[in-house]
Amino acid sequence: MKRSLVNEIKNIEIGEKIKLNGWVQRRRDLGGLIFIDLRDVSGFVQIVFNPDVSKEALRTADTLRTEFVIEAIGEVVRRDESQVNKNNEFGHLEVIVEDVTILSKAATPPFQISDDNINEDIKLKYRYVDLKRQELQNILRLRHKTTKAVREFLDNEMFVDIETPFLSKSTPEGARDYLVPSRIHEGEFYALPQSPQIYKQLLMLGGFERYYQIVKCFRDEDLRADRQPEFTQIDIEKSFTDQEDIIEMNERLISHVMKEVKGLDVLLPFPRMTYDTAMNEYGVDKPDTRFDMKLNDLSDFSKTVDFKVFKSTVENGGVVKAIVVKNQASEYSRKNIDQLEAFVKNYDAKGLAWLKYNEEGFTGPIAKFFGESEQSELKNLLNVEENDLVLFVADKPSVVHASLGNLRNKLAKDLGLLDKNQYNFVWITDWPLFEYDEERGRYIAAHHPFTSPKKEDEGLLETDPTKAKANAYDIVLNGYELGGGSIRISNPELQEKMFKALGFSDEERDKQFGFLIEAFKYGAPPHGGIAYGLDRFVMLLAGTDNIRDVIAFPKTTSASDLMMKSPSTVSKEQLEELNIEIIKTKE
Amino acid sequence: MKRSLVNEIKNIEIGEKIKLNGWVQRRRDLGGLIFIDLRDVSGFVQIVFNPDVSKEALRTADTLRTEFVIEAIGEVVRRDESQVNKNNEFGHLEVIVEDVTILSKAATPPFQISDDNINEDIKLKYRYVDLKRQELQNILRLRHKTTKAVREFLDNEMFVDIETPFLSKSTPEGARDYLVPSRIHEGEFYALPQSPQIYKQLLMLGGFERYYQIVKCFRDEDLRADRQPEFTQIDIEKSFTDQEDIIEMNERLISHVMKEVKGLDVLLPFPRMTYDTAMNEYGVDKPDTRFDMKLNDLSDFSKTVDFKVFKSTVENGGVVKAIVVKNQASEYSRKNIDQLEAFVKNYDAKGLAWLKYNEEGFTGPIAKFFGESEQSELKNLLNVEENDLVLFVADKPSVVHASLGNLRNKLAKDLGLLDKNQYNFVWITDWPLFEYDEERGRYIAAHHPFTSPKKEDEGLLETDPTKAKANAYDIVLNGYELGGGSIRISNPELQEKMFKALGFSDEERDKQFGFLIEAFKYGAPPHGGIAYGLDRFVMLLAGTDNIRDVIAFPKTTSASDLMMKSPSTVSKEQLEELNIEIIKTKE
Repeated sequence: MKRSLVNEIKNIEIGEKIKLNGWVQRRRDLGGLIFIDLRDVSGFVQIVFNPDVSKEALRTADTLRTEFVIEAIGEVVRRDESQVNKNNEFGHLEVIVEDVTILSKAATPPFQISDDNINEDIKLKYRYVDLKRQELQNILRLRHKTTKAVREFLDNEMFVDIETPFLSKSTPEGARDYLVPSRIHEGEFYALPQSPQIYKQLLMLGGFERYYQIVKCFRDEDLRADRQPEFTQIDIEKSFTDQEDIIEMNERLISHVMKEVKGLDVLLPFPRMTYDTAMNEYGVDKPDTRFDMKLNDLSDFSKTVDFKVFKSTVENGGVVKAIVVKNQASEYSRKNIDQLEAFVKNYDAKGLAWLKYNEEGFTGPIAKFFGESEQSELKNLLNVEENDLVLFVADKPSVVHASLGNLRNKLAKDLGLLDKNQYNFVWITDWPLFEYDEERGRYIAAHHPFTSPKKEDEGLLETDPTKAKANAYDIVLNGYELGGGSIRISNPELQEKMFKALGFSDEERDKQFGFLIEAFKYGAPPHGGIAYGLDRFVMLLAGTDNIRDVIAFPKTTSASDLMMKSPSTVSKEQLEELNIEIIKTKE
Repeated sequence: MKRSLVNEIKNIEIGEKIKLNGWVQRRRDLGGLIFIDLRDVSGFVQIVFNPDVSKEALRTADTLRTEFVIEAIGEVVRRDESQVNKNNEFGHLEVIVEDVTILSKAATPPFQISDDNINEDIKLKYRYVDLKRQELQNILRLRHKTTKAVREFLDNEMFVDIETPFLSKSTPEGARDYLVPSRIHEGEFYALPQSPQIYKQLLMLGGFERYYQIVKCFRDEDLRADRQPEFTQIDIEKSFTDQEDIIEMNERLISHVMKEVKGLDVLLPFPRMTYDTAMNEYGVDKPDTRFDMKLNDLSDFSKTVDFKVFKSTVENGGVVKAIVVKNQASEYSRKNIDQLEAFVKNYDAKGLAWLKYNEEGFTGPIAKFFGESEQSELKNLLNVEENDLVLFVADKPSVVHASLGNLRNKLAKDLGLLDKNQYNFVWITDWPLFEYDEERGRYIAAHHPFTSPKKEDEGLLETDPTKAKANAYDIVLNGYELGGGSIRISNPELQEKMFKALGFSDEERDKQFGFLIEAFKYGAPPHGGIAYGLDRFVMLLAGTDNIRDVIAFPKTTSASDLMMKSPSTVSKEQLEELNIEIIKTKE
């Protein structure tokens, strides 16, 4: 007799026999009978042990405990109307067991699977137990559904899935590499790829025209809660394309994923916003557009007022901006506002000025600095209404934007303005080509060194590179960067200018990227692409805010695998073969 | 105007305009006109520059050279019947160019793409040029078609694609690991996975029941021609299964792939052969069954003859076997046979005895040792006919099998007996559970330590482990191991016995696999699976015998990437951050 899955019980006639395999989810003993919820990959169903049917099966059932693995054979019957379990798809049926076998016993699990109050480290140590949790089961299946939808779409569009190497080469641009010592080549190392960027461009030079890959990438960075040392990218590249073409195709891709995975129709095209607008109006380069509360620029207004803090900030090249928290003035005590001030200080703001508005006008510590006409002007500029709270930061633009942009997001969360079931996609375009790297003390590529400048800005590379805008675009969903890409440089002379603008000497450039510049000499098609962070995409689709929920075997924020105890020490012989030794710096 | 692909020209009305993008494949100048074959991802078509249509386009055309990237707009016309290029799908059409733009110039490539006589190292250095070769284009597309067919099948069977970690843990069982130093955990290392074996078993414990992944794996072994340091596995695991179920499902999987990729119907079920039969009759554990020439066991016969070499070999526990090369006696001179003898000496054979058969009977140096009745018996045992060549090896079984098994394959190749278009699948079953590892001086798991013994052999683990057979199976195609798997141990006590039989102390076992044995205590479903070597599978489907042909960016046999020059030296700072330094052993 062949095993049926629980959900196949629907196809079995009442009175017919079924063989089920699965785990004991719950046991109840009642009136000499034993009732067990048997769970498998497809669901669960009640199976009943009745002494009138089989005394032996009942005896075995009496030894069953939670998570035992069993095989049960019995007759499918319909439950009394009054007994139907309305919370279960198969709650109207049950199986009267004739024969049962214990396939595996189970010790008491280290924690209750359904218990939400378990320390995450314990759950990670026993990940195989936690993986049985319905939520994780659902999320990892949703992840597969997502990649399947992506593949379907790209396959239909004639993209070729091509694997690129993991044992790659270390390049100093970008984040820190994970290194792999070579045994054969003494003193040399491979690097795990941070992305297949160079390979995918070489595939374009190799004439493949349309490439994709869903692939692991690696960055040895200090981890934050939403980062993992290895992460998965949906990597796409296309020849004979431009920004419009890439955006249009990716909108169709996302629309297909949303339909297949969430059953949702998204409205195309997505809105677009320049990088400058995003920064000015939302303070961040990945605006959450599910709610309003935009940044209002009060710099011009501030020039005209007597309030010295505002006035002098603007006179010294800074800006003054404010957000309006609608209808919340009465909810925020001084103490609450002090907490918000502490929050913006994380972003280097020196303080958070505030005003409340009601029918008598503005109140608050700085109200006195504004005369009647100024208050009236402010009211109009901010469109304030009864019971609104206004929060101001005056500083250099980067501080104002970071402070108010992040405060805006925090307030939306605190005030419950975020609807998990709303998906607001927005393209951010016209990125700067360069950004200043404090650590390196020089300009670096904002995206990567292969991103092309806007045609009209090519001349700026040699004159005023920091003013150049890039043919780069990010797709943002609900305040998260879902993916980003660019149209690449396909002209070797322009690429050389780019490296020069980045401060590379000819020697450095040739050492690191010589082969690539050479490659572009043999006929390079115009090309561009995009890469999505799959983990984050799935996180948003699944409605979780824990990145570890979307990864079967995640690492902690110190990049440890608590289950396997990895990383771990290795033998002296292994290190000798690799011609390396450990430098002890701590005891 | 939107770009069309070359193959979309079929859908365009004669007289309509088309915009094409692609590479200059060939140029001919004739009677004041210029003819160019324009190639893109979908094919190539002739485009014509005529001064009567556009003098400017003709002037640009005159500057075009091979591999220039261009955009051309023009009218689609039908070629004269006499001019049709019958070697091209679109040879009956051409485009009269009105406007042409050079998108990229191209330097003369470092070698002619179509030249087969280029040193492979040069081709690997300029891989992006070689990738334009039609054969590589086709193979990498066939690779994608293969993975697509595999995914389709497994998705339909409710398998879940789940990603497992790359930053994993080093385990001394198995091949040599690639190590990755940890920056955060001083003196500790990750290892790149040799396979996701442990993870996929944990997913079964975690209740996923059906898992697959198409995933890179890593082995730092000395490379042979058909090995790469990183290779791709189709990895499959299933719960509540047994050997029959796995074999049946994988036959349907392979059948689906053969249909989708090659358009072939394969006959199911595949033949099966025990490991012992394969070794006895084919000398190898991956028999090529496309041709006969099996090994004949003459050990019993040898006991009865006066030929001392044969007789004493058998008396000392060895065997005598022979293969019959049909109808080739006259083609093999003494010198040819000496070459075959040199070949078997690679497999430690001390010599290769031979006889030829024709109407007068057996001839050859050892014929004199056999009397008339013995010759007659030999004739019957070997079924020899006129002009057959018989080749004998007498030695211990492992030497006889390796010598004759590999000689059999070599002869088939030399004699052209191998039909590339014939696909002979065969399951090899009933593998030994252990094999002797000369280097370690102890028994190791023939498959891996999680493979279950045959039910009836479980007792042997504690008494005579080397006699135990495993629930293991390999799928062999045309003499290559395509994949292999087993039903795993799901009982923690049996797993502990297995580690004991492998010579692990309790301490070693707990250190390396403690978490796994622990994991099995919380309710382990019976499970098993298989893993295919994708690179080899694609190699066979593509009919190439160079593994580098099926990999976009392969490494050399010294594990180097000649294009990127990887591995490479890294900075002192990078090593310091990882707390390691290089030991110099050479100057």
